[in-house]
Amino acid sequence: MLKDTQKQIDEWAQTLEEPYWPPLSQFAALSEEVGEVGRLMNHLYGSKPKKVEEANQELGGEIVDVIFAAMCMANRHGIDLDAEFEKKMDKCYWRDRDRFAKKDHA
Amino acid sequence: MLKDTQKQIDEWAQTLEEPYWPPLSQFAALSEEVGEVGRLMNHLYGSKPKKVEEANQELGGEIVDVIFAAMCMANRHGIDLDAEFEKKMDKCYWRDRDRFAKKDHA
Amino acid sequence: MLKDTQKQIDEWAQTLEEPYWPPLSQFAALSEEVGEVGRLMNHLYGSKPKKVEEANQELGGEIVDVIFAAMCMANRHGIDLDAEFEKKMDKCYWRDRDRFAKKDHA
Amino acid sequence: MLKDTQKQIDEWAQTLEEPYWPPLSQFAALSEEVGEVGRLMNHLYGSKPKKVEEANQELGGEIVDVIFAAMCMANRHGIDLDAEFEKKMDKCYWRDRDRFAKKDHA
Repeated sequence: MLKDTQKQIDEWAQTLEEPYWPPLSQFAALSEEVGEVGRLMNHLYGSKPKKVEEANQELGGEIVDVIFAAMCMANRHGIDLDAEFEKKMDKCYWRDRDRFAKKDHA
Repeated sequence: MLKDTQKQIDEWAQTLEEPYWPPLSQFAALSEEVGEVGRLMNHLYGSKPKKVEEANQELGGEIVDVIFAAMCMANRHGIDLDAEFEKKMDKCYWRDRDRFAKKDHA
Repeated sequence: MLKDTQKQIDEWAQTLEEPYWPPLSQFAALSEEVGEVGRLMNHLYGSKPKKVEEANQELGGEIVDVIFAAMCMANRHGIDLDAEFEKKMDKCYWRDRDRFAKKDHA
Repeated sequence: MLKDTQKQIDEWAQTLEEPYWPPLSQFAALSEEVGEVGRLMNHLYGSKPKKVEEANQELGGEIVDVIFAAMCMANRHGIDLDAEFEKKMDKCYWRDRDRFAKKDHA
């Protein structure tokens, strides 16, 4: 349940004087975290001088930073991520069911 | 537990011929979703002509798209997001404990 | 000279009631444009259903949108992009001179 | 003329063994640079601990990095940015002429 993760973030955020940043500031933070993932992508798979071991170790942390930043935005807006995630999976299974090739079944 | 959400995504992904895109392609998809959130931010809080009701309705879906894209990257790399999230919360509570002002306690 | 392009943008911007958006709103707009480029990248080079011809036609416009958004930010902050560009090229030629492999010279 | 700037970048790029990175790698680099601008935005205008003087000094360099990365993509794809910029300005003046409030003229 994403709700549990949202709640853990909120419990921490509520200890702060300004639990959540203003939305456009939250968004800039999200973009910053995504840029960090981009940096690692280029060390791992792109044309940057390779630093594979370091980049692999950092990747999980940077991806969680993206999710954390996105969840802070969700919390600030009172968004129920489980309900939204359910809608997303429905779309994956149904609306987009012919969009990508499926595995063959004998 | 983020693991459950990761698993739900993986169950769907495994029905596809190419369960996960190559990393740099996953990253471009993540950036695209973040751009969609930016678009809504400007309709809600920025200088774009206001479309508040529509944008509010869409925001949850776009934030989930960001989380979904980030989790696809995590799945492709075998990342345990719960372990990473725990490290993140530890940092919030400990390493950054003096970084942001706390609420006063009487 | 980037100055000419900055000036052309400014001449247009000055016809508007709000010539430049607030910085965080400009930034969200920049991210949105970058997301558009990401979308095209995945149509051209990634795993999205290919729409090569359309995407190729749109790419120049989307890249210019990124540059335009970046220049609006520069204009709002009174940044002299030619001076900054000169510093950038100096760094390319000097500071990073051993960072990427050079072509061999006989 | 953006062409001159594109050409200066190309003259440098052509001294490298791999003048331009593959497109998805260029895109990740662009996102990384945009994330750097986002970081400064939050130091200047957001809720991050303020480092106004440093951030102001760095901003021009980070914005030029975005433009540089976008121009590398344009160069790799043979895009004539002046032609695209002209189309963009036409759109600003004509297609979007009623989109934003204009200054009053007596």
